[in-house]
Parts: sequence; structure tokens; C-alpha cells
Amino acid sequence: MTLTAADITAIISAGVPASADSGFRVETVSPGMVVCRTHYDERQLRPGGTLSGPTMMALADAAMYAAVLARLGRLEMAVTQNLNINFLKRPLPADLLACAEILKMGKRTVVLDVKMYSEGSQDVVAHATGTYSLPPAGRE
Amino acid sequence: MTLTAADITAIISAGVPASADSGFRVETVSPGMVVCRTHYDERQLRPGGTLSGPTMMALADAAMYAAVLARLGRLEMAVTQNLNINFLKRPLPADLLACAEILKMGKRTVVLDVKMYSEGSQDVVAHATGTYSLPPAGRE
Amino acid sequence: MTLTAADITAIISAGVPASADSGFRVETVSPGMVVCRTHYDERQLRPGGTLSGPTMMALADAAMYAAVLARLGRLEMAVTQNLNINFLKRPLPADLLACAEILKMGKRTVVLDVKMYSEGSQDVVAHATGTYSLPPAGRE
Amino acid sequence: MTLTAADITAIISAGVPASADSGFRVETVSPGMVVCRTHYDERQLRPGGTLSGPTMMALADAAMYAAVLARLGRLEMAVTQNLNINFLKRPLPADLLACAEILKMGKRTVVLDVKMYSEGSQDVVAHATGTYSLPPAGRE
Repeated sequence: MTLTAADITAIISAGVPASADSGFRVETVSPGMVVCRTHYDERQLRPGGTLSGPTMMALADAAMYAAVLARLGRLEMAVTQNLNINFLKRPLPADLLACAEILKMGKRTVVLDVKMYSEGSQDVVAHATGTYSLPPAGRE
Repeated sequence: MTLTAADITAIISAGVPASADSGFRVETVSPGMVVCRTHYDERQLRPGGTLSGPTMMALADAAMYAAVLARLGRLEMAVTQNLNINFLKRPLPADLLACAEILKMGKRTVVLDVKMYSEGSQDVVAHATGTYSLPPAGRE
Repeated sequence: MTLTAADITAIISAGVPASADSGFRVETVSPGMVVCRTHYDERQLRPGGTLSGPTMMALADAAMYAAVLARLGRLEMAVTQNLNINFLKRPLPADLLACAEILKMGKRTVVLDVKMYSEGSQDVVAHATGTYSLPPAGRE
Repeated sequence: MTLTAADITAIISAGVPASADSGFRVETVSPGMVVCRTHYDERQLRPGGTLSGPTMMALADAAMYAAVLARLGRLEMAVTQNLNINFLKRPLPADLLACAEILKMGKRTVVLDVKMYSEGSQDVVAHATGTYSLPPAGRE
């Protein structure tokens, strides 16, 4: 039942091939928190040399999904209902790490908090909160 | 000074090569509103056959940027400060259209509203609001 | 089954006595939209002479609830799940009006959009989106 | 220059008399974090016996403002630009506590995170993020 980091990486990469292209990987899994990584990719840069906002949003969303899978097991029909993100600081030219934490584990929704960092720095470059909606049956 | 739809498409595609891959295109430009399109791309699908959330977030963000460029002209250092998105309905297997409208044109920030539709349908599939931060000088 | 503006005003004022103090009133009800009003109250002013943010948030929340009641009838257990608000412009020293519109009417959630105006002006002073969660049974 | 908890309580209560009515008080001040309290008040209850959403939003907003004052000193023209709140759990019939933390201290904006608790419980009942806009001069 419990999924490993490799299991969750495989589920997400199979589900969305584009996320595999970005070198998305779940690094660490614990009951209420996961850490995920996106490789620094020059194709994702925007003017000024920083990772694009959508790259950060995609990582935030994938990290939230990974945290839901880590808690509930394979549950492909969970869908993002809401995501709110604040961009705080220009990321460094480095891999991007996301720590997703479950704030509320409800029957119908999961609310999560994600902090993102450039590898090698302690500054939060973006902060997101979001809600995943669970399928009516609860778990598959 | 005024940019056409083709100009803005070129600026955004040059700035972020990955957006060119997605077939992103500005379709219509008017003073307070732009319409943008992302091609339906099977690589962006998620389980269940729908376009992925990040594809929709990327389009929302690009449409907001396009609306800022349409109003202010070439301004490459405008950056997303905040984006909030609600996913309302499963998109159809079709191109995705985004209408971005300026709610507030401030000296330091622009606040925008984006509604997204599947081509051929009038249902709003996602709704986003966001804030772009302008460079201190106002315009470049 | 269908509630009038006066019915909805009474339900909300009975439910939250503090909202009655603020002179909250539903003005107009139609299937997908309601208009609500809060009286200009000097006690709600903040430094600079403007209505306080919380006054505007309270009106946005009440207007969303009013729109849910207008659509579904008496449903006291609907609760706010998420609210996101952007403050756009300093309100005038005047009553505050809120137009709430339903973006999505789901089985478990209602997503709404609220625009707020100072009476006598067409400028949007604040824009909110929010999600109400419906009781599992759907309707009471 | 540095303000105490009592100073900040006085500034906020003088600025918005309605917040004084709610028994708002800053409890603890440290450089990047403040803790604030709102008294449990039966007039703020909504059907079901819980504190109303607007009461929680008002506390979140005041706690963010308190954290800005704690960091920058007396700065009456800072205004809320955006607030996003997720309601996670029904609060207990008890005082409400809010811990506000600064995520980003920029020249033009401050981004904050607020967690709210019912006194005597460790469960987060609501979580907010928000942006305060600073006056152009930086500090008064």
C-alpha cells in the first residue's frame, strides 16, 4: 500500500510525460511531507535567466500530488481544485526543490502547503498553498 | 509602441522556448483584454484524458503576461508576483483558450483575471487571478 | 423554495449578528448573481480614511453565501472553504456594493467571483474568488 | 523604534475601532513572527456554533499587519494587497490565536504566512497567505 519515492515518481511521470522531460523526481517521502526536485533546464528559463513561473507552478502542483499519493496510496483521480502561489525571490541557476506538507487531510479534500528552494540555498523562492479534491469514494 | 498579437507571441515564445513547444499563440489583442491559445497536446494529458493543471497554469500566466505587454509595450522585466487558480471543470480534448482582462493597472502592479475555455464550449474550465509586478522605473 | 433578497438578508443577519450591525443587506437576487451592500460606517475606517480590508472581506464572504442561498435555497451548513481577495483601489467614503456570481455549481463545491464597488463609482475596488463547500447530502 | 506587543495592539486598535471591540491583542513579538489573539465572542458565531469566517479573516489580516509593524516600526500606510485563506477545521468555542510569519521582506511588498489555532488545540483551523504593499518611500 505504501508507495516509495520511486513509485510516486513513476506514477507521476507515467501520468504526465511532460513532467518526465523536466527531470521531475520525488526525493524523500514521509507521512506528512515530501520533497521533490526539478532539474535546472535552460529551456525553462525566462528573460533575466530565471526559471519560469510555470516551471515552479508545475513543480508545486506535482509536489502536492506526490504528498497526496504518499499519504493515501495510488489514487489517480485526485485532481487539483485550487492553487495559490506567491513568487518571492528570483531562483538561482540550480535545481529547484519543493517541500510539500499536508495541512488538512479531509474526507473530500486535502489542503497542502509547498515551499520551494533553489538547491544550495535556504531562501524560499516561492510559496504555494493548494487543495486537491479526492474522488467521492475516498480511496480507490 | 503598440504590439500586435504576432509581436507578443514572438516575445513570449523567444523568452520561454518551452511555451513555443506548446503551440502557444496570442489570438486577439485589445486595450484591456487578450485571447490566447494553447494547442491540445497529448503529451500534456493527465490520467483521465484531460489537459494537465500545469498546462492550464502556464496558459493563464502567459495570457496575463500577454495582456500586460499589450497594454504597456515591450517590458521584459515584468514578473508574476501571485497567481491563484480554481479548476472548475474537466477540459474537453480540444485547444484551450484563455481570455485575460486587466482589473487594475497600477504604477507598480497589474492585477488580472483570466477565464479559460475549451475551444467549442462556453463553459469556463478554469479561472485565475494574478498580479504582475512592474519594474520600478515603470516602463523600460 | 426560492428565497427573496429579504429572506437571504434575514438568514445571514440572524446567523451572524455582527453582520446585521454593519447594515448588511442583499439588494438584488437573480439565478446566478446577487448584489449586496454594506453601509459606510466610520467605525470600520482604517488610517487614511478608507474602509478596512476586513470589512471588504466580510462583505465578499457574505455576498458569496447569499449567492449560494439564492441558488440552492436555505442551506445553513454551507461553509467557506477558500477565499482569495485582491484589493485594487482605495474605496470612496460611501456604501460598498458587492456583485457575486457563480462560476461553478458543483455537487460538493460552489466557486464564485465577487466584484466590489463604492456606490456611485464604476471602479472595482476589490475582487475576490472563493469556494463554498456544500454539506455531503447536497441540500438540506 | 522597535514596537512592543502593547504598542502594536494600540496602533491597530486605534486605527480600526472595530478590532478593539473584538478583543484583538498582540501577544508575542519577535523579529520575523508575531502571535495575536481574538477573544471568543458569541456575537461572531455563525450557524453551527463556530466563529465566523470574517472573524478569522480579520484576525489573519491584523496579524499580518502586526508582523509588518513589528519588523518595520510604525508604518500606517502599509495596506493589504492580497489575502488568500483556506478554512481547514471548525474552530473550538475558544479564543483564536494567529501566528504570522514573514516569508519575504521586499522593498515594496511583504509576503506573510498565518496559521490560526483555537486556544488549547494544536490543530490548524485556518491558514492564510497574504501580501502587504509598503508605501513607496519604504518607511515613513
